Amino acid sequence: MSVVPTTAASAGPVLVIGSGLLGASIGLGLRHLGVEVVLRDSSPTTEAVAQDIGAGRSERAALAAGAVLPEPALVVVAAPPDVVAELVVRALTEHPDAVVLDIASVKAPVLDAVRAAGADLTRYVGTHPMAGREKSGPVAARGELFTSMPWVISPGEDTGAAAIAAARNLAVDLGATVTVMEPREHDETVALISHLPQVMSSLLASRLQDTPLHHLSLAGQGLRDTTRIAGSDPGLWVQILAANAQPVLDSLHAVRADLERLIATLERPGADGARLDIARLMAEGNAGRARIPGKHGGAPTAFATLTVAVDDTPGQIARLLTEIGEIGVNLEDMRLEHSPGQPVGLVTASVEPSRHADLVEELQTRGWKVVQ
Amino acid sequence: MSVVPTTAASAGPVLVIGSGLLGASIGLGLRHLGVEVVLRDSSPTTEAVAQDIGAGRSERAALAAGAVLPEPALVVVAAPPDVVAELVVRALTEHPDAVVLDIASVKAPVLDAVRAAGADLTRYVGTHPMAGREKSGPVAARGELFTSMPWVISPGEDTGAAAIAAARNLAVDLGATVTVMEPREHDETVALISHLPQVMSSLLASRLQDTPLHHLSLAGQGLRDTTRIAGSDPGLWVQILAANAQPVLDSLHAVRADLERLIATLERPGADGARLDIARLMAEGNAGRARIPGKHGGAPTAFATLTVAVDDTPGQIARLLTEIGEIGVNLEDMRLEHSPGQPVGLVTASVEPSRHADLVEELQTRGWKVVQ
Repeated sequence: MSVVPTTAASAGPVLVIGSGLLGASIGLGLRHLGVEVVLRDSSPTTEAVAQDIGAGRSERAALAAGAVLPEPALVVVAAPPDVVAELVVRALTEHPDAVVLDIASVKAPVLDAVRAAGADLTRYVGTHPMAGREKSGPVAARGELFTSMPWVISPGEDTGAAAIAAARNLAVDLGATVTVMEPREHDETVALISHLPQVMSSLLASRLQDTPLHHLSLAGQGLRDTTRIAGSDPGLWVQILAANAQPVLDSLHAVRADLERLIATLERPGADGARLDIARLMAEGNAGRARIPGKHGGAPTAFATLTVAVDDTPGQIARLLTEIGEIGVNLEDMRLEHSPGQPVGLVTASVEPSRHADLVEELQTRGWKVVQ
Repeated sequence: MSVVPTTAASAGPVLVIGSGLLGASIGLGLRHLGVEVVLRDSSPTTEAVAQDIGAGRSERAALAAGAVLPEPALVVVAAPPDVVAELVVRALTEHPDAVVLDIASVKAPVLDAVRAAGADLTRYVGTHPMAGREKSGPVAARGELFTSMPWVISPGEDTGAAAIAAARNLAVDLGATVTVMEPREHDETVALISHLPQVMSSLLASRLQDTPLHHLSLAGQGLRDTTRIAGSDPGLWVQILAANAQPVLDSLHAVRADLERLIATLERPGADGARLDIARLMAEGNAGRARIPGKHGGAPTAFATLTVAVDDTPGQIARLLTEIGEIGVNLEDMRLEHSPGQPVGLVTASVEPSRHADLVEELQTRGWKVVQ
C-alpha cells in the first residue's frame, strides 16, 4: 500500500480497539492520510483481516514478531456498545498520556460508567459518527465511510480541551461534519431520530409475518420505505435500545398515548368528533414530517416532484438523468420504484419548484413518459 | 386533440363521475385510445379543467350547448370515498344497461351500501387501482398514471361476468396489472400494507413536532424513509381510515400488544430475559420485512448494495449510472442520500449479488469513490 505524507490534523500514532466495520474504516481513512495506526481486536481473525485490507498494523502480529509498538497519542474504542466503557477505562489506565475516545451510539451511560470507575475524565471524550451501515465486519470497511456524515462530539463536564480537539481533528480528517452536543442531549436526540424510527419500523414489519405473499405483492413504495430499516441487525439493536432505554421509553409512552386515542376513535368511527380526531392525528404527522430538513437544509416540502416511467434496462435511467442534466436542472433527490414482474421502472425526481414545469415539458418533448 | 382509432378493449362511451387526479387520469388514458369519454364533477371548475386537459367531454358544457349525450356502456365512479356508494346507486338507476364500477380504496363498505340500497348488483363491480399520488386535482392527471401499477378487482357474489370483464378491460387498457380479490380480503390486505404503514408513519412523525431543528439536522435516511408518507393528505386519510376502521383496528390492537411488551421490557432493561425480549421483537421485524417482494418478485435481501459518493452537480449521477450501464450491470434499486449543507451526495445501488464485487472493483478503477 502506498502511503502519502501525512496531511492529517490527527497526530499519530492511533490505537484502534475493535476492528469491525467502523474501527477498520477509521483505520483505513487514517492510513490514507499517512497516520500510523495499530489495530487491536478480541478476535485474532478480525484483527488480521483488518490489517490485510490496509487499516493498520495488527498489534498481535507485531508483538509476535518482537516489534516494539509506539505509545499511542489517541486511542479510538470502536468495540460493541456493551464492552465500550470497560475498554475506555482500561485504555485510560494503560496509556496515561493518550486521549481516549469511543464511538458508541449512546453516550451518557458510557460517561457514567467511566466516571464510576474513577478514571481520568479529562482525557476521555465520547463521540458518535452517524454513518450508515448495512453490512458489518472489516471486509465491508471503507476509508470514505464518514464522508459528509454527521459526527457528534459529546464532551462531559470534565473533558479537557485537548481531548475535544483530538476528537474534532479525527472527525474532520475523515471528512465528517462535526456537531457538539452534551451526552444526555445526544441520547435524547438519537432516541427520537434513530431509535424510535427503528422500533416503529420493526413493530410494523412484524405484522407482515403471517401475511400471504400474494397480498404483499400489492405493496407499494410506502410499505417498502416504512419497513426498510426493520431489516437491521437485532444483535446490535438490543445493545442500543437497552443502553438508551429511558429516552426511548419517553418517546414510546407518547406514541402509546396517541395510539390509544386513535384506537378509541376507530372503535366508534361514526361518533361525533371521530373524523376530527383522525384528521388531527394525520395533521400532527404532517407537521412533524415538515420539520425534517432536506438536502440543502430546506424543508422537504420545498421541492417539486415528477415521476417518469422508464424501461427496465441498464442504460435507461442513466439516459434520463443525462437529459435532466442537459436541460440544466439539478436533482434534489430521486428514487426508483418498481412493480414486481413489470418491465417498467418509475423514477421519481425532486427538483426546485421553479424548474418543475419546464422540466416536465422538455422531457415530454424528448419523448419521456412523465406519469405524474 | 388528435384521437387515434380505438385499440382499446373497453367499449365506449364511458361516463367518468369525479374529475380529480384519478378520474381525469382514467379519462386521459381512454381518450388516448380513442374511447369516447364524458366527464361529470360536482365542481363545474374541476369538470371544465378536466375537459381542457383532454380527459373527455364536459357533460355540463355539452348539455348547455344542447348536445345529446350518448348513453354510457361503462360508468366509472371516481369520487371521494364518502360519496361513492350513493353515486354508484344513482348511476345504476340512471343507466340501466351500463356496467358501473368505482375505484375507492376500501371495498366492502361500498358493496354493503349498494346492496342495502337495493340496486342491481349484477352490473356493479368494485375496483381499486393502487396508483401513487402526491398531488391531487385534474391538472396533475396523467394518462400513464396506472402504468405497471396493481389494479384490484373485487367482485361481490352477485357481480355478473360482463361487469368483471368490463373492469378487467379498463385496467388492462390503462396499462395496469390486474389482481382479483374478494372485497373483505381486499380491505384486510390494504389495512395491513397501506393503512397501517400510514398510521405508524404519522404516529412517528407526530413525535417530531417539538424537536429542535438542530437535532433534526442529524436525521439520516432511516427517519426520512419511515416518515415520508406522513406527509399525506389528512382529508383523504380520514375517509379511508373511517371506512376501513375494523381491519385497521385488528392490526392496531396487535401493534399495541407488541408495544406494551417492549415498554415493559425497557422499563427493566437489566432484568433476566430483557435482552432476549428485545432481540425477539427485532427478529420478528426482520422476518416480516423479508417477506416483501422485490423488483422481480425476489425478496429484497436477495440484492447486494454499494454506495458511491458523488459531487452534487447535475451531470454526476447520470455519469455514474451511464458507467454502471457500460459495465453491463442492471440496477435493481437505487436511492440518493444527502447531508444538509454538504456538496456530496451518496448514491446507493442494489445489484445482483453475483455482479457486486466486479462492479465495485470496476467503479474504483474508473475513479469513483465507493464508500460502502
